[in-house]
Amino acid sequence: MAGNSFGDLFKISTFGESHGKAIGVIIDGCPPNIDIDEAFIQAELDKRKPGQSKITTQRKESDTAQILSGVFEGKSTGTPIAIIIPNEDQRSKDYSHIKDKFRPSHADYTYHMKYGIRDYRGGGRSSARETAARVAAGAIAKLYLKKHGIEIFAHVSAVGKIEAPNVDASDLSALLAIREDNIARCADPATAKEMIEFIDAVRKDGDTVGGKIAAIIRNVPAGIGAPVFDKLHAELAKAMMSINAVHGFEYGSGFAGSEMRGSEHNDLFFSEDQDLHKMHTATNFSGGIQGGISNGMDITFRTAFKPVATIMKEQQTINEAGQETTISGKGRHDPCVVSRAVIIVEAMAALVITDQLLKQASYNSDKF
Amino acid sequence: MAGNSFGDLFKISTFGESHGKAIGVIIDGCPPNIDIDEAFIQAELDKRKPGQSKITTQRKESDTAQILSGVFEGKSTGTPIAIIIPNEDQRSKDYSHIKDKFRPSHADYTYHMKYGIRDYRGGGRSSARETAARVAAGAIAKLYLKKHGIEIFAHVSAVGKIEAPNVDASDLSALLAIREDNIARCADPATAKEMIEFIDAVRKDGDTVGGKIAAIIRNVPAGIGAPVFDKLHAELAKAMMSINAVHGFEYGSGFAGSEMRGSEHNDLFFSEDQDLHKMHTATNFSGGIQGGISNGMDITFRTAFKPVATIMKEQQTINEAGQETTISGKGRHDPCVVSRAVIIVEAMAALVITDQLLKQASYNSDKF
Amino acid sequence: MAGNSFGDLFKISTFGESHGKAIGVIIDGCPPNIDIDEAFIQAELDKRKPGQSKITTQRKESDTAQILSGVFEGKSTGTPIAIIIPNEDQRSKDYSHIKDKFRPSHADYTYHMKYGIRDYRGGGRSSARETAARVAAGAIAKLYLKKHGIEIFAHVSAVGKIEAPNVDASDLSALLAIREDNIARCADPATAKEMIEFIDAVRKDGDTVGGKIAAIIRNVPAGIGAPVFDKLHAELAKAMMSINAVHGFEYGSGFAGSEMRGSEHNDLFFSEDQDLHKMHTATNFSGGIQGGISNGMDITFRTAFKPVATIMKEQQTINEAGQETTISGKGRHDPCVVSRAVIIVEAMAALVITDQLLKQASYNSDKF
Amino acid sequence: MAGNSFGDLFKISTFGESHGKAIGVIIDGCPPNIDIDEAFIQAELDKRKPGQSKITTQRKESDTAQILSGVFEGKSTGTPIAIIIPNEDQRSKDYSHIKDKFRPSHADYTYHMKYGIRDYRGGGRSSARETAARVAAGAIAKLYLKKHGIEIFAHVSAVGKIEAPNVDASDLSALLAIREDNIARCADPATAKEMIEFIDAVRKDGDTVGGKIAAIIRNVPAGIGAPVFDKLHAELAKAMMSINAVHGFEYGSGFAGSEMRGSEHNDLFFSEDQDLHKMHTATNFSGGIQGGISNGMDITFRTAFKPVATIMKEQQTINEAGQETTISGKGRHDPCVVSRAVIIVEAMAALVITDQLLKQASYNSDKF
Repeated sequence: MAGNSFGDLFKISTFGESHGKAIGVIIDGCPPNIDIDEAFIQAELDKRKPGQSKITTQRKESDTAQILSGVFEGKSTGTPIAIIIPNEDQRSKDYSHIKDKFRPSHADYTYHMKYGIRDYRGGGRSSARETAARVAAGAIAKLYLKKHGIEIFAHVSAVGKIEAPNVDASDLSALLAIREDNIARCADPATAKEMIEFIDAVRKDGDTVGGKIAAIIRNVPAGIGAPVFDKLHAELAKAMMSINAVHGFEYGSGFAGSEMRGSEHNDLFFSEDQDLHKMHTATNFSGGIQGGISNGMDITFRTAFKPVATIMKEQQTINEAGQETTISGKGRHDPCVVSRAVIIVEAMAALVITDQLLKQASYNSDKF
Repeated sequence: MAGNSFGDLFKISTFGESHGKAIGVIIDGCPPNIDIDEAFIQAELDKRKPGQSKITTQRKESDTAQILSGVFEGKSTGTPIAIIIPNEDQRSKDYSHIKDKFRPSHADYTYHMKYGIRDYRGGGRSSARETAARVAAGAIAKLYLKKHGIEIFAHVSAVGKIEAPNVDASDLSALLAIREDNIARCADPATAKEMIEFIDAVRKDGDTVGGKIAAIIRNVPAGIGAPVFDKLHAELAKAMMSINAVHGFEYGSGFAGSEMRGSEHNDLFFSEDQDLHKMHTATNFSGGIQGGISNGMDITFRTAFKPVATIMKEQQTINEAGQETTISGKGRHDPCVVSRAVIIVEAMAALVITDQLLKQASYNSDKF
Repeated sequence: MAGNSFGDLFKISTFGESHGKAIGVIIDGCPPNIDIDEAFIQAELDKRKPGQSKITTQRKESDTAQILSGVFEGKSTGTPIAIIIPNEDQRSKDYSHIKDKFRPSHADYTYHMKYGIRDYRGGGRSSARETAARVAAGAIAKLYLKKHGIEIFAHVSAVGKIEAPNVDASDLSALLAIREDNIARCADPATAKEMIEFIDAVRKDGDTVGGKIAAIIRNVPAGIGAPVFDKLHAELAKAMMSINAVHGFEYGSGFAGSEMRGSEHNDLFFSEDQDLHKMHTATNFSGGIQGGISNGMDITFRTAFKPVATIMKEQQTINEAGQETTISGKGRHDPCVVSRAVIIVEAMAALVITDQLLKQASYNSDKF
Repeated sequence: MAGNSFGDLFKISTFGESHGKAIGVIIDGCPPNIDIDEAFIQAELDKRKPGQSKITTQRKESDTAQILSGVFEGKSTGTPIAIIIPNEDQRSKDYSHIKDKFRPSHADYTYHMKYGIRDYRGGGRSSARETAARVAAGAIAKLYLKKHGIEIFAHVSAVGKIEAPNVDASDLSALLAIREDNIARCADPATAKEMIEFIDAVRKDGDTVGGKIAAIIRNVPAGIGAPVFDKLHAELAKAMMSINAVHGFEYGSGFAGSEMRGSEHNDLFFSEDQDLHKMHTATNFSGGIQGGISNGMDITFRTAFKPVATIMKEQQTINEAGQETTISGKGRHDPCVVSRAVIIVEAMAALVITDQLLKQASYNSDKF
């Protein structure tokens, strides 16, 4: 209710502030007997962690996950899996200058108005550090999805006005290798180079810039999702919009689809061997979802991230007494978050799909 | 869990199929002693109902709401308010041609794969007729919000490639009058005229077209929403994406914001009389929401609707046996849904804000 | 949240007041393709309806269920099943004398303090009439359970101090026939006769009396339930305690078990054919549940009902102005509710087990 | 959904196994600005911890709570409060003899059937060690309730067949002092002495015994709770039945009330100063709850605990292969749990009331 949980049957609850003792997550409802590959969880966290390249914040955190419960002899037991990630490189003093000032376009003012109290150090709970807990939970969801042959892939499709061309998505593993070969995490190497140079220039200018992430979910069976309020794309939208700095979401044809005619936009059905499970559509403007339910085609969506609010320039603001004042960014911050956020997008997508698969299972089984 | 409910404290659950006996909604958690103005509820339904103009479907439904419970002597009692809307103008025979065929870009195939059974008449549960129940519930939410001075306004900002210019939003009542003065429900009269002509031409062509809706929520106090997964804009995104045909959502600066720099995008704070409650920002790229919580400024968002899938042309498809075949649209359908959907967008926004206000109240009260 | 819903995956939401237009229920999450036998639903309602014998209230209601949605050609479609039961024999004038007085041990005072408004006619929402909606929903759950061979049986085990001896429960169908052969709904004919005479005498005295209901759930597979807060017996306890007038719940050895020693109370395990699924225990003090999870043995529990609060005698009370006054029972009321409540106990048990079975299914299926 | 969470607005989620790294709890929805008195939390844990007297298990655990998040400068911030309690005195070898055997009347068999895997060490998740996490969370709820003048008191009212007489409950602080003055935690000193001797004799006999706990909640304002499924006593019932070993629950007149007549059982209303808030009833068979909602009188209830299943005697059982075998209790176990469980009963009661108070607040506030 207080908004720190996500999912129904595969449910995660995160906790922790940027400069507290630890952040963490409880995963409740993970099916038993899943192999919990701790090295994989850590590898996922490493893709999100700060300090990994020159275009990310230089704050250093090892982001080491510790599993406290729910795993026995390497397998999930069906009981809650608690994971904590201790906080290490805290320089709380870096934040004393914002103790009673509200940073523009941050959550300082709104937290103050909501709670009447806030842990100002590093943004407290509003820090994107919270997303490390999501990545850990998403890694476990990915391990579950792998068993069912489901693949998730995201990459940086735009930084500022630099847009990547469409990439060949026929082999997602190959695309992943290309993406991981550059620090921008764009699957088009030429664009990646351009993005890195641009982000670096923005950083040197003490400024920040936004970007976009495009994603594909492959091999989701037809029939996953729900028809009314919990449409599969509505769940994905909520999941993505809950990531810090995201200002927009679209799936399939998205905003561009609103300019099309029905005769262009409709995805015509074709089948093989007169087998309903081998259906495909000629186009995929539906983005793999019709009426809120998966149709078996690739699920495609895109998210837009605003520029990071912390900049190294002086800005007008107010303080807790309601007085006007100025503030300048200090500390270590990202000039552009999208290359780290790619893994968060994947994690949230994995969580949505896993939860929906478990829901669908409750219909399909006649044996207990 | 099955996805037919929305909200936590102000919770609605809808039911009903397009060609069943009735559709309806239960509103659970409506605070007691709210004046339930039945004429207002009906007026809201009339704005959504079919057959209201030449650019909407000609299906005739009076959409008459009947309140079965939860209201006593004109006031809410705090118990569930059940509302039913009987179905009237059903021509189920119109649908016999789709009994075992899947209409392209409809929910026929996905429902079949999910449930193994479907009420094919009029699309059954996947019909946008379900949204009438949302409008009835949204009307009650609006009555609650009115008590708190909160206004919600939406209008058609684009049909196909025809985009309305920015409108002066200083007086939302005036804007509403302009919007209701044209059947396109666009608050810019000149653009409205253009839109109507275009939709009419598309309709004559047996085709359909998409569009966009822009919305403002005004006078939401600062501090409403939640910080992590249930960010206020994430709830709005889910609410809007759950409306039939919506393919995209953005708030504040939206997708365009991802092309900006932090130094342009940050909303600088100003205050009056050293009063935190009289804060305003110079710009509003944040769309009234920071860190998932309202900051007191206008909440602004936009949604993109794909073109209606039912067109009066022959199209390739498959049937329940997995065989390829063709299908042509029959029946009475909308050439463009956005002018009717405006009221659905407002209803869903009202539901989101009401639910969040009740949640916030649980923190603020020290008296029971 | 407002407490009008029960269950998670098989979720029911009831609505309606005693003297409003109708009461009803939405069942959300019913699996598709269940045969919805309307005659069975009505037969269940008939067992609960008022006016069925001389020992129940003489209020006449046909309690006719109308299904509005979610059923197509006799089968559930997976979408919400809405059922309404119109109110018929309302004599609202019977209640004008309680308009501003609080009946002792009724919900009048507490509703007034909670909501500041109440529909006083017939007790409004607090009337046990609401349980008709539960019985309709429970009937659908029973249809689902029947597919899985699960049987539920309850009967009146005590009225006042008249206690039935233990009955032979080896054949629940036979026991049901015995129970339905007497208006007390006690499975021991001799005790039933005594109960009926006693209730009739109490009724003639203008008084009321309490009683107990004992229940068995048979053929629940081992492994159903949850280990911590949602223990299977905790769910049953909540379900039973939510029935009007219930003041106590116990399962297995119950209160008497607290007087035993571990060496007497432990249920020793035996197996057949070295098959874990053919386990049985020598005794069943565990009541078929260990650690909150079913072990495959009969699930047994008992509930205690207080005497009905409405009596035909003058009693001391207060009015809405806080003044002391007196009140006398009018209208048509039950001298003892347990013989009608038997079917409510069965309905709630069916709802609990169905919900838990669907949850368990989400673990067991590897195919979607 | 998986049953490891309790509450809606004040929601706790526990995790952890008896012999894992730690157990713990997340409290989500705690209002901001509550003084979090860590010494009080620890004092509550100390009342539950093992090894505190000769009549409890000799297992030694300091049960030291560490707060990881949600508290800043001694106050709650409104964000999730995570508390962990590391496990210390683990002798996992003590449990190797049960690795593939099912202890009678334990959860070994049912966990195995549900999950197909179990952490057998110390009972894993089914261990009552999990309740330490509840006590920590309950302590925070008590701190919230204290602000509102609400008191909760429980004590051991019976051990085996030894029943305490009714105690004078006019001063709960005084009663608490008496209770804490004896290791049985019975508020009647003479009975306490008898209980201690009896438990000690049972322990020496290698056996165990059950008991009962009686509780009072005082100063809950009228109007708290919900009318239908989530009746206040239904929530209390679920809360209590979720505690390990509880087999029965009753409130107010309880099981005995089912033997009474309405004319005896009805609680007549009286008022002072014509003030509805100063109402009292002459008797309190309603146990402070009418129609599921508090009426301002003392809320009274009792719970029955079965004898601990682990006894130091050889017993018949089966193993994972379905073969019959025998097993003997080893390790360190409680001969009777009620004196430690008193604090768990209070904690669960505090959680129920706090959650309901927050729900009621959402109705009463017109300011945000």
